[in-house]
Amino acid sequence: MKNAKTASTSFSVMTEMVLPNDTNTLNHLMGGRMLHWIDIAGAIAAQKHCNRVVVTASVDNVSFKEPIKLGNIITLQAKVSRAFTSSMEVHIEVFAEDIPKGTKVKTHDAFYTYVAIDEAYKPVAVPELIPETEEERQLYVSAARRRQMRLVLAGKLQPHEADLLKDFFK
Amino acid sequence: MKNAKTASTSFSVMTEMVLPNDTNTLNHLMGGRMLHWIDIAGAIAAQKHCNRVVVTASVDNVSFKEPIKLGNIITLQAKVSRAFTSSMEVHIEVFAEDIPKGTKVKTHDAFYTYVAIDEAYKPVAVPELIPETEEERQLYVSAARRRQMRLVLAGKLQPHEADLLKDFFK
Amino acid sequence: MKNAKTASTSFSVMTEMVLPNDTNTLNHLMGGRMLHWIDIAGAIAAQKHCNRVVVTASVDNVSFKEPIKLGNIITLQAKVSRAFTSSMEVHIEVFAEDIPKGTKVKTHDAFYTYVAIDEAYKPVAVPELIPETEEERQLYVSAARRRQMRLVLAGKLQPHEADLLKDFFK
Amino acid sequence: MKNAKTASTSFSVMTEMVLPNDTNTLNHLMGGRMLHWIDIAGAIAAQKHCNRVVVTASVDNVSFKEPIKLGNIITLQAKVSRAFTSSMEVHIEVFAEDIPKGTKVKTHDAFYTYVAIDEAYKPVAVPELIPETEEERQLYVSAARRRQMRLVLAGKLQPHEADLLKDFFK
Amino acid sequence: MKNAKTASTSFSVMTEMVLPNDTNTLNHLMGGRMLHWIDIAGAIAAQKHCNRVVVTASVDNVSFKEPIKLGNIITLQAKVSRAFTSSMEVHIEVFAEDIPKGTKVKTHDAFYTYVAIDEAYKPVAVPELIPETEEERQLYVSAARRRQMRLVLAGKLQPHEADLLKDFFK
Amino acid sequence: MKNAKTASTSFSVMTEMVLPNDTNTLNHLMGGRMLHWIDIAGAIAAQKHCNRVVVTASVDNVSFKEPIKLGNIITLQAKVSRAFTSSMEVHIEVFAEDIPKGTKVKTHDAFYTYVAIDEAYKPVAVPELIPETEEERQLYVSAARRRQMRLVLAGKLQPHEADLLKDFFK
Repeated sequence: MKNAKTASTSFSVMTEMVLPNDTNTLNHLMGGRMLHWIDIAGAIAAQKHCNRVVVTASVDNVSFKEPIKLGNIITLQAKVSRAFTSSMEVHIEVFAEDIPKGTKVKTHDAFYTYVAIDEAYKPVAVPELIPETEEERQLYVSAARRRQMRLVLAGKLQPHEADLLKDFFK
Repeated sequence: MKNAKTASTSFSVMTEMVLPNDTNTLNHLMGGRMLHWIDIAGAIAAQKHCNRVVVTASVDNVSFKEPIKLGNIITLQAKVSRAFTSSMEVHIEVFAEDIPKGTKVKTHDAFYTYVAIDEAYKPVAVPELIPETEEERQLYVSAARRRQMRLVLAGKLQPHEADLLKDFFK
Repeated sequence: MKNAKTASTSFSVMTEMVLPNDTNTLNHLMGGRMLHWIDIAGAIAAQKHCNRVVVTASVDNVSFKEPIKLGNIITLQAKVSRAFTSSMEVHIEVFAEDIPKGTKVKTHDAFYTYVAIDEAYKPVAVPELIPETEEERQLYVSAARRRQMRLVLAGKLQPHEADLLKDFFK
Repeated sequence: MKNAKTASTSFSVMTEMVLPNDTNTLNHLMGGRMLHWIDIAGAIAAQKHCNRVVVTASVDNVSFKEPIKLGNIITLQAKVSRAFTSSMEVHIEVFAEDIPKGTKVKTHDAFYTYVAIDEAYKPVAVPELIPETEEERQLYVSAARRRQMRLVLAGKLQPHEADLLKDFFK
Repeated sequence: MKNAKTASTSFSVMTEMVLPNDTNTLNHLMGGRMLHWIDIAGAIAAQKHCNRVVVTASVDNVSFKEPIKLGNIITLQAKVSRAFTSSMEVHIEVFAEDIPKGTKVKTHDAFYTYVAIDEAYKPVAVPELIPETEEERQLYVSAARRRQMRLVLAGKLQPHEADLLKDFFK
Repeated sequence: MKNAKTASTSFSVMTEMVLPNDTNTLNHLMGGRMLHWIDIAGAIAAQKHCNRVVVTASVDNVSFKEPIKLGNIITLQAKVSRAFTSSMEVHIEVFAEDIPKGTKVKTHDAFYTYVAIDEAYKPVAVPELIPETEEERQLYVSAARRRQMRLVLAGKLQPHEADLLKDFFK
C-alpha cells in the first residue's frame, strides 16, 4: 500500500470567535457561516492527507440543533475518515464554547468530501487511509455506505443498486 | 387553511460576484463560500414565506460538480418547496455565468430547511404552502421523502420506519 | 443595427441582507455600502449587455430618503437604459424590505454609467440598446439629457451648448 | 452667529490601500469601493463639524477618469463646504498614489451631503460654516447652486424656479 | 491557592488559511494580519484561564523572519505562561505550512498580555497559574523579567529599579 | 548623502471608523485590529520614504491603556524615525476620537520596523533619513537604543554587548 497514511496524520484543529457580522438580528450565528468554517477545516485536513490543492466535492446532510451565540468560541476538529481513488471523506466535529459561562457543547458531526487536483484542475490519485483507533475503523467502514448515499443522491447510482443502503433501510 | 401562501410568494433571487477572497490559490470559488451564499438566499425565501426571523435547521447533501471561477456571476433562485409545523424546506437553484465568455451553467440544486422563531428563540407556526405549478407540486410531494431522510440521518427516526425511503431503495 | 440587444436582456436582480458591519452606531445602513451595492448590480447588467469587463465611468446624483435598518433585505434591479459608443447607462431601482414587519419601500432610482474595456484597458464598442416597453423608451430618451448633464459637470461641454438642459431649465 | 465653525475645523484625511477584494478581474479598483470610502471620509468631516451622528443624504455626480490599481495608496481629504439648517455639504478630494512608481494623481472632486440626527433619528440643527480661504469661499458660494441642482433632481424644486441653474445654463 | 489552574487548561489551537486580502502585492502575508490573528489566539487562551471577557493590555516585541505566502496554512498555539493579579501573559507559537510542498516552519514566539474585566470594564482578579512541564516552568520564571520590561517601556518603572533586567544586561 | 530624505516626506495620516466586526462582545475595539491598522499606516510611511514594496520586520512593545469604543474615529499618524541599511523604523501615533462627546485621546506611541524588498523578495538599500525638528532628532537618536533592544530580543546581540541598553538600565 504505497504511501498510505494514518488518519491521525490529517488531524487539524481550527478555532473561530463568533463576530457580529457572523450573526443574525438575534445575535446568533448564521448557519451559512458555520458551513463555510467546516469547509475550511475539512479542506485543511484533506490537504494534509494528500499534500495537494483540494476542492470540495460534496457535503453530507448537516443539521443545526444548538443555537450558537455572539462571542462564542468555535472549535472544529477534522480528520480524514477514508480515501478513495482521488477523493477523501473528512469527518469534522464542531464544539461551541461560552467561556464566561463555562459551557461547551458539541454542535455538529459533519462529513465533507474533497477531491485532490493538479494545476490543470484534473483529479489526481491520493494515498490510502489507514484507520488505527476503534472510532477511526468504524468511520472507515461506514464511509462506504455514506458514499453510496452520495452517489444515489447525485443520480450516479440507482437506489436499487445501493446494496449498503438497502440493508440499512430494510 | 388559514393564511396559506403560494410557493411563488417566497421566490427570491440573489446575485454575487466571485471576488478574490472567495477563491482558492487556483482562482476557483471555495465550496464553503457557496454554502454560505445558498444559506442566505434560502433564509430570505423562508422569511418571505413566514414573515419571521428564521434559523437554519439543516442542509441536505450538496455536491459540487462545476468549477466556478474568479469574476463569475452567481445567481441563486430560492423558493419554499414545503412548509411543516414550524419549519420550511427551501429549494435553491444556483447558476454560474462567465459573462465575457457568454456561458451560464446550473451548478446546484440544494435543499435547506429553516425554522421560524420568535424573540425568545422558540419555534413558531408557519403558514402552509400551496404549490401551483407542476414543478412546485413535484417538489412538494418529494419533500416528504427528503424529510424522512433528514430524520433518519439525525437519529430521530429508525431506518425501518422510514416507509418512503424503503420504497425508494427497494 | 449589428448585434443590438433589448433592454430586458441585461435585467439583473441582486439581493443583500444588511449585516452589522454595514451599519452605523444607530443600526442603520451606511450610505457608502448602498452606493457600493448599486455599483455591483449596475456592473452586472452592463456586462450582460456587452459581454465584456466593464468599469464604472460615472454615478449620477443619488439621494437617500428612507432609513434602512439592520436585518433589512435589499433588492436591487438593474437594466441598461441606453448604450452609447463604448459606454452604457444603467438604471438601478432599489427596494428595502423589513420582512417581519411586512413592509417594502422603494429607496432609490439611480443611474450609473459603465465603459466596456478590453484586456489592455482600452474602451471597446458595445451593442446598441433596443427599448421595448413604454418605460424603457422614456428612459432611453431622457438618457440623452442625463448625458449632457454629466458632460457639463465633467467640464467637457459648455453649459450654454447643453441644449437639452437649457430647454429643461427654461 | 452662535457656535459657527471654520471650514478647517472639519478637515479630515483618510488613507486606504487597494487590496485584492477591492479590485475587478483586471486588478483595478471597483468604483463602488471608492464611493464607499468617499462616504466614510465625508461622514467623518461632517461629524467633526456638528459633533453628532450623521447620515448620508445625497451624493452629487461622481465621475471616474483615472484607473486605480491594486496596491495603490488612496488619500481622501474631506472638508465641510457649507452648512444648511440640519445638513452639511462636504467636499472630498481623492488622490491615488503608486509609491514604487512615484506617481500621484488627483482622481476625484466629490460632493456628498449629510444630515445630523439625534437618537430618535430626527434631524437636528448644525452650526453655520465660516469659510476662510479663497477656495473655501468659492465652494461656499457655489454650494447654493449645487443645492438647487439636488432639489431639482429630487423633484422638490421645479426646474424653472432654480434661478442659479438657469443663469448657469443660459 | 484558591482556584489555581494548570497551564495546559488554557491551551488553544487556531488555524487560518492565508487568503488574497491578507497579502501584499507580492502575494505574501502582511504583518498586521498576523498580529491580529495572534491577538485572537492569545485572547482565547486567556479567556479559558479566567472564564471572563479579556482585553489586550500589551504586546511584546514581535519580529517577522520568515516570509509567509498566499495559501499557506497558519497554526497558532497559545497557552497562558503566568497570571498576575488581574492580568495574564500568554505565550503564542506560530507555524506556517505549505502543504503541497510539505514544509512547515516556526515563524513566531510571541508574548501578549491580557486583563480580565467585568461588564463595567473594571479589572477583576484571575486564578493563579500552575506550570507543570519544564518548558512551562521556564516561561513562568522568565515572565517576571518580561513584565519588568513592559513596566519600564510603559514608564511605570524606572530602568534602575528593574533588577531582573539589570542582571540581564550586566 | 545620496538621495537622503527628510522625515516629513514620509508623514502619512490614516483614519478608520470602529465598526461592529472590530469589537468584542462589550463593544470595545479588539487589540489585534489596532495592531493591524498601525501596521498599514507604518507601511505606507515606509513606502513613501523608499519608493519600494516593504515588509514588516518587527513590532516593538505596544501597550493598550485607553478603551476604544464602537463608532470612535481612529487617527493614525506615521513618520519614519530612522533609516538603516535596508530597514526603516517608523513612529506611529494613534488618537481615538468620540466625536459626539467631543473627546480625543492619544492611545498609542508605536514603533514598527520595515524592510524594503525587490521583486525577488531580497532586501534593498533605502535612502538615509534627515531629521529636522527637535522631536524628529530625539526619535532619530533614541532609535539606536530601540534597535539594540530588538537585536537582543531576537537573539542576534548578547545583552552584555548592548552598550546603549546597559547605560539605560544602569
